[in-house]
Amino acid sequence: MICPVRWSDGAVIILDQRELPGRVTYLTCRTVEQVARAIESLAVRGAPLIGITGAYGMALGIRRSRPSTLERDFTAAFDRIRRTRPTAVNLFWALDKMDRAYRTLVRNRRTVDQVKAGLAAEALGIHRDDARTCRMIGKNGACLIPRRARILTHCNTGSLATGGIGTALGVIRTAHRQGKVSMVYADETRPLLQGSRLTAWELLQHHIPATLICDSMAAGLMAGEMVGCVIVGADRIAANGDFANKVGTYGLAVLSRHHGIPFYVAAPVSTFDLSTSNGRGIPIEQRRGEEVTAIGRIATAPATIQAHNPSFDVTPARYVTAFITERGVITPPFRAGFKAKFDAR
Amino acid sequence: MICPVRWSDGAVIILDQRELPGRVTYLTCRTVEQVARAIESLAVRGAPLIGITGAYGMALGIRRSRPSTLERDFTAAFDRIRRTRPTAVNLFWALDKMDRAYRTLVRNRRTVDQVKAGLAAEALGIHRDDARTCRMIGKNGACLIPRRARILTHCNTGSLATGGIGTALGVIRTAHRQGKVSMVYADETRPLLQGSRLTAWELLQHHIPATLICDSMAAGLMAGEMVGCVIVGADRIAANGDFANKVGTYGLAVLSRHHGIPFYVAAPVSTFDLSTSNGRGIPIEQRRGEEVTAIGRIATAPATIQAHNPSFDVTPARYVTAFITERGVITPPFRAGFKAKFDAR
Repeated sequence: MICPVRWSDGAVIILDQRELPGRVTYLTCRTVEQVARAIESLAVRGAPLIGITGAYGMALGIRRSRPSTLERDFTAAFDRIRRTRPTAVNLFWALDKMDRAYRTLVRNRRTVDQVKAGLAAEALGIHRDDARTCRMIGKNGACLIPRRARILTHCNTGSLATGGIGTALGVIRTAHRQGKVSMVYADETRPLLQGSRLTAWELLQHHIPATLICDSMAAGLMAGEMVGCVIVGADRIAANGDFANKVGTYGLAVLSRHHGIPFYVAAPVSTFDLSTSNGRGIPIEQRRGEEVTAIGRIATAPATIQAHNPSFDVTPARYVTAFITERGVITPPFRAGFKAKFDAR
Repeated sequence: MICPVRWSDGAVIILDQRELPGRVTYLTCRTVEQVARAIESLAVRGAPLIGITGAYGMALGIRRSRPSTLERDFTAAFDRIRRTRPTAVNLFWALDKMDRAYRTLVRNRRTVDQVKAGLAAEALGIHRDDARTCRMIGKNGACLIPRRARILTHCNTGSLATGGIGTALGVIRTAHRQGKVSMVYADETRPLLQGSRLTAWELLQHHIPATLICDSMAAGLMAGEMVGCVIVGADRIAANGDFANKVGTYGLAVLSRHHGIPFYVAAPVSTFDLSTSNGRGIPIEQRRGEEVTAIGRIATAPATIQAHNPSFDVTPARYVTAFITERGVITPPFRAGFKAKFDAR
């Protein structure tokens, strides 16, 4: 059982995913700053898991508060964690949920100890809910997968990216348990190789037939009719269905359309940002060029070359066959579909 | 001045491109087997340069022949070198050229020393001709490049892949000298990173404005209208215009079509294989999965994961805006265009 993040009496214990699959090591974060840096450095990553980690970070932020410092500590933690990564909306969703819980506790004149316990419980609840959410996404998505499916996926969307079995990988795991998966093609996902380091590791662990490919090989597999469908996760889905996900997703979506292959996006409701009207409104994190010009500490390009390194790209809604959520599958027109599913939220 | 391969009185000196850009080291090949392994291991690569290297290997193969062993040595060298890599047709073109030269020398009752000198001269001629060919490709291709061009390229097609300034990169260098290039986006080109290791190095050397990207980032740049045209090389072009090139090329071609971006293929006449009617007839080299699962000696994936590793993919002719050759630019319909240009061959 992989546990990529957990709350352990006054500390947030984070599996350092930068070291996988070579080494399984854990970071013990005792301060908000340590949690924030773990998120920024991608020791912990994956949109839903960033949300969970951010929530634990908030609980940690008031762990040593006195009545006179509670509000200041809470605000400082909130501000620090929300500055870690801009794209995945699950982080902001989780922070807002923690903020609401905090406000309610304070409004009800709870003691500082009660507020601390309340926020820890809220974070644990977010974590536990995500596990259930993943199971539902898996179940809903598996209905879309035919027998003998050959599925292509990108980046990592499994147990290492969520609080449960995963989003896109949760669908794959569920379909595999139903005996329907004949092959999963895992994009290695440059620059940080979440596909080869993390997804390949998870697929092996669950004995799912898997083949690792370079991102640039997906098109040839599609032309050779080796790919029956594509399933990816998402970091933020706008109100019209445009969505941001790991860089490379947009190209896969275009290629899927070109080859007549269904293209599915699996994500929890917390990934939908209906306050952003379309993809142009989604902030895209630009990371250091060194992630492209070196692998680990090994330079793979001349030191002075400039590199472009957006972590995400935006795929317009028109390329999406369906969104798979814990509340069901949403097909076009998306705006109406989102309204129908999420008005209950 | 880069000299990736040269003939030095009884040896073939090969720049070991696997070590670039970190180290500039040369392999001194004194046997056909050493030349063959340099080609197989990608110490030397690039379709035109493989042809040149193969030709030098043939000259090397009879270097120590006596009259009684000449024919056997020639045949052994021919058979060994033609088994090195299957896709780039330039190798077979060069071997056939060396074979014709050998047959002519033998038919004319030359001495063994004259045959040795004749084959060395033929190989040097192939090398020298390729330099002129590159200049012509550069000149012909630069006419297609508009002012302030933003050009995307894949793999390495420059001085490290040819006997001259390059094919696709030769066009870029020529257009740059004409003041027309505002940015070159170089795909890093997984799995072996010829883009980051070799193309980035060449672009820096020639002071051409350059940005390195992961292969998966090209689609997003196209959507953002950052790419004005794509130019790639080729390893084999069939009679109908279908062509094989470094894996990832086909995806770029589809993306170019989707975004309305011209897609050019720059290659010498020696890359055209009119005896292969279409892309289905081009053999695609499959290489070891370890090239995908490790970078250098560093594992980037679990040891037991299966990896897919075709070195090339095939792009159907319909995605090609024009072929750029030393004899001019060929636009559709290609079959007629090839006939018009190559009947003089």
